[in-house]
Amino acid sequence: MREDDPAEGLTHTTETGDVQMVDVGDKPDSKRRAVAVGELHLESATITAIRADEVAKGDVLSTARVGAIQAVKHTWETIPMCHQIPITNIDTTFELCEDCIELTVAVETTGKTGCEMEAIEGVTTGLNVVWDMVKALEKDDDGQYPATRVTNVRIERKEKQRM
Amino acid sequence: MREDDPAEGLTHTTETGDVQMVDVGDKPDSKRRAVAVGELHLESATITAIRADEVAKGDVLSTARVGAIQAVKHTWETIPMCHQIPITNIDTTFELCEDCIELTVAVETTGKTGCEMEAIEGVTTGLNVVWDMVKALEKDDDGQYPATRVTNVRIERKEKQRM
Amino acid sequence: MREDDPAEGLTHTTETGDVQMVDVGDKPDSKRRAVAVGELHLESATITAIRADEVAKGDVLSTARVGAIQAVKHTWETIPMCHQIPITNIDTTFELCEDCIELTVAVETTGKTGCEMEAIEGVTTGLNVVWDMVKALEKDDDGQYPATRVTNVRIERKEKQRM
Amino acid sequence: MREDDPAEGLTHTTETGDVQMVDVGDKPDSKRRAVAVGELHLESATITAIRADEVAKGDVLSTARVGAIQAVKHTWETIPMCHQIPITNIDTTFELCEDCIELTVAVETTGKTGCEMEAIEGVTTGLNVVWDMVKALEKDDDGQYPATRVTNVRIERKEKQRM
Amino acid sequence: MREDDPAEGLTHTTETGDVQMVDVGDKPDSKRRAVAVGELHLESATITAIRADEVAKGDVLSTARVGAIQAVKHTWETIPMCHQIPITNIDTTFELCEDCIELTVAVETTGKTGCEMEAIEGVTTGLNVVWDMVKALEKDDDGQYPATRVTNVRIERKEKQRM
Amino acid sequence: MREDDPAEGLTHTTETGDVQMVDVGDKPDSKRRAVAVGELHLESATITAIRADEVAKGDVLSTARVGAIQAVKHTWETIPMCHQIPITNIDTTFELCEDCIELTVAVETTGKTGCEMEAIEGVTTGLNVVWDMVKALEKDDDGQYPATRVTNVRIERKEKQRM
Repeated sequence: MREDDPAEGLTHTTETGDVQMVDVGDKPDSKRRAVAVGELHLESATITAIRADEVAKGDVLSTARVGAIQAVKHTWETIPMCHQIPITNIDTTFELCEDCIELTVAVETTGKTGCEMEAIEGVTTGLNVVWDMVKALEKDDDGQYPATRVTNVRIERKEKQRM
Repeated sequence: MREDDPAEGLTHTTETGDVQMVDVGDKPDSKRRAVAVGELHLESATITAIRADEVAKGDVLSTARVGAIQAVKHTWETIPMCHQIPITNIDTTFELCEDCIELTVAVETTGKTGCEMEAIEGVTTGLNVVWDMVKALEKDDDGQYPATRVTNVRIERKEKQRM
Repeated sequence: MREDDPAEGLTHTTETGDVQMVDVGDKPDSKRRAVAVGELHLESATITAIRADEVAKGDVLSTARVGAIQAVKHTWETIPMCHQIPITNIDTTFELCEDCIELTVAVETTGKTGCEMEAIEGVTTGLNVVWDMVKALEKDDDGQYPATRVTNVRIERKEKQRM
Repeated sequence: MREDDPAEGLTHTTETGDVQMVDVGDKPDSKRRAVAVGELHLESATITAIRADEVAKGDVLSTARVGAIQAVKHTWETIPMCHQIPITNIDTTFELCEDCIELTVAVETTGKTGCEMEAIEGVTTGLNVVWDMVKALEKDDDGQYPATRVTNVRIERKEKQRM
Repeated sequence: MREDDPAEGLTHTTETGDVQMVDVGDKPDSKRRAVAVGELHLESATITAIRADEVAKGDVLSTARVGAIQAVKHTWETIPMCHQIPITNIDTTFELCEDCIELTVAVETTGKTGCEMEAIEGVTTGLNVVWDMVKALEKDDDGQYPATRVTNVRIERKEKQRM
Repeated sequence: MREDDPAEGLTHTTETGDVQMVDVGDKPDSKRRAVAVGELHLESATITAIRADEVAKGDVLSTARVGAIQAVKHTWETIPMCHQIPITNIDTTFELCEDCIELTVAVETTGKTGCEMEAIEGVTTGLNVVWDMVKALEKDDDGQYPATRVTNVRIERKEKQRM
């Protein structure tokens, strides 16, 4: 399961410390899956509004899903040292609690390197899109965002299966 | 200071709930500044490694700075309802604590709409780039990331100044 | 109202016929608006499905709206000789008839050149996104698309107002 | 030949109607080819000008070819739910009739999902590029486009061959 | 005419040496023009082929022009510390000598920062596109490129005019 | 070792001279490697400054490395007729001489077509990024660049290995 030698330390730098991509030319193709999760804290009135909208049309979450999926596919250009890998599947799931939205993004690929950065990019971007959609509801009288924050973005599970 | 009418509710949807960009055609040009902050929690051994690298070459943080700056400039395509605005300045500052890195991104623009989404995108992407650079150090024996997480991403301050 | 001299012929080529951008450096800033319209013909069963979905969740049209809006903003890279202009507003409207969807995209800009290509790109891309979303419903037993077609994409109105 | 179960209905939504990519992880690699066709109606004087130019330099159609080819390669970002697939070949053919240009785009890939959206994107973008190149010839005295329209964009043939 | 204080040294780094964009928020808008030139050395047989093609159809140079123009417009994402500026004009000129092609790219903008990097990006990319188009002619029996090289890429002239 | 038939002439055009991508659908997968090299001539004072910075922080070269790596990955969109290929490795090496910087970029892929254009794009873009970072040091009192030039960009070695 272990992909990189712990002794390697910083795998994206050479011996002399220069930033580099990891050479994946000799790695076998594996089926890989990574699941990332994160939360966006919002005013509870905003959650109520999204919930109502979701029932009626779902536009806020639909737009966020599209943003998350596009972010997953663009990870190779957003994260400088990432390789471009063939994404075979992306699942996005939103859970609404009283004052937060939890977004889970599961990414699958068949390739030579993992897809956890893709899943993380999907989560942070998807949550940022929700934030963008509800800006007017979150701002206080001074135009500030006292409650809004993206938090607890983590990898829930990373799996690899030799083919 | 207030840019949107709180009564507007979800400014990115029409009356019938369809997702739309905000019309900024009649807004005056203003000097605007937004400062976002966030943290990446890491194993303290990773922080030590980055610190040592930083002194010696700074590559991890340099790469993350470039990633953050590019993310700020690309916000109009990452966040579907954002307008493309002329970014005049971007400042990125890293603070290292014992088991976390704090990234502050300040964005300035002269235009018709705010730049807080740009600042947030800079923070989440910059922290994700750091994560990508230290993956080998953060993974446990099972290839999982027990400690790593992006957290507490917030807008510290948003300002607008009529010209 | 006339922006280009009809005698100019092909404005994107030089005297010797080489492809070039139009020089807009000396054009004054104007408020401009262009409205493009187009239709996607579909099986009536597909329209029924979209209509039902639209009531329930609206995801097909929401995704198409996001696709159309992103296409408008990306016109400067999709159409090689287009300039990058500051888009101030984008409106997308879908009308469903018995066997077709009509998409209207209105684009507004304040700048030195018109935005009709942006509106057209919004229409063709938005309709293509709908097509992509309903592929399984449109294909016949041989995997072909006997009914599906994008048609009648035109500029409904183009306006310019000196500032 | 049938790739999707007709019973699936809208393949890009989950049971609860949320927009999603199709999971192609277990699909075998196939050689696939899709041919799309479409027309751009123009003033016959414009066709004459393009024809003359084509003989002399071909710049209008060359630029449109480049635009079509780039659009094919960018379909995975233009159409939100498309996967990125390895395009192995793109053929573009223009036919000029008295008052229209017909563009045929054939796309080939070896992969897990079809390339018809790539072919359609090539056709609509290629025709939009021609429109952009001949704007000055098509506009009337009021700056409007009475004759110009993109029409009859369809999939001529879609093929799949197990490897 | 001098835009940066020579004493500033490396304008893209802070006092502590961190990479940063230059703050252009307080710079006045100026009309700016930059002209870059460069050469691609080729086998003389290749030049003969291009010359013949150019008379007949011009496709190699047309494609290179499109590539150069797109590269100019994309400089803000290709060169990490560049700002996105409104390009108002791009001129591309090819000169063919016996064993080389010279490409001149002139870029104009009205804005707060110069456009010399845009002109240089146009030249190097345009010449690289020509190289790509004539690969089969330039390769020797061992698949190597003994003669091909991009050389002498320089800024011919940079101008600024207060408005 | 020879990939294209020399008799083919311009492989990116059809018999009638229209620009086209090369059909790689029937080419076998090979391990491929291309090494490109190029130089940026600078004032020797600039080299001294970079050298000092490199020891201390390395930011100029780090940023250029990131720019070069991103350019390699983006070649399929920068060079219109290039295919998108799976890059497995990128190595960037800078050598500083008295008045120039030499950049070597080695690119590896496993696929159906070579990666020399990717290596060349990496070299020209990486050198252009260095230029951008040291603009203030290179400009003379008139704001011109008397010494700066990108030169001698060539393919050092191209290799292919059947799998």
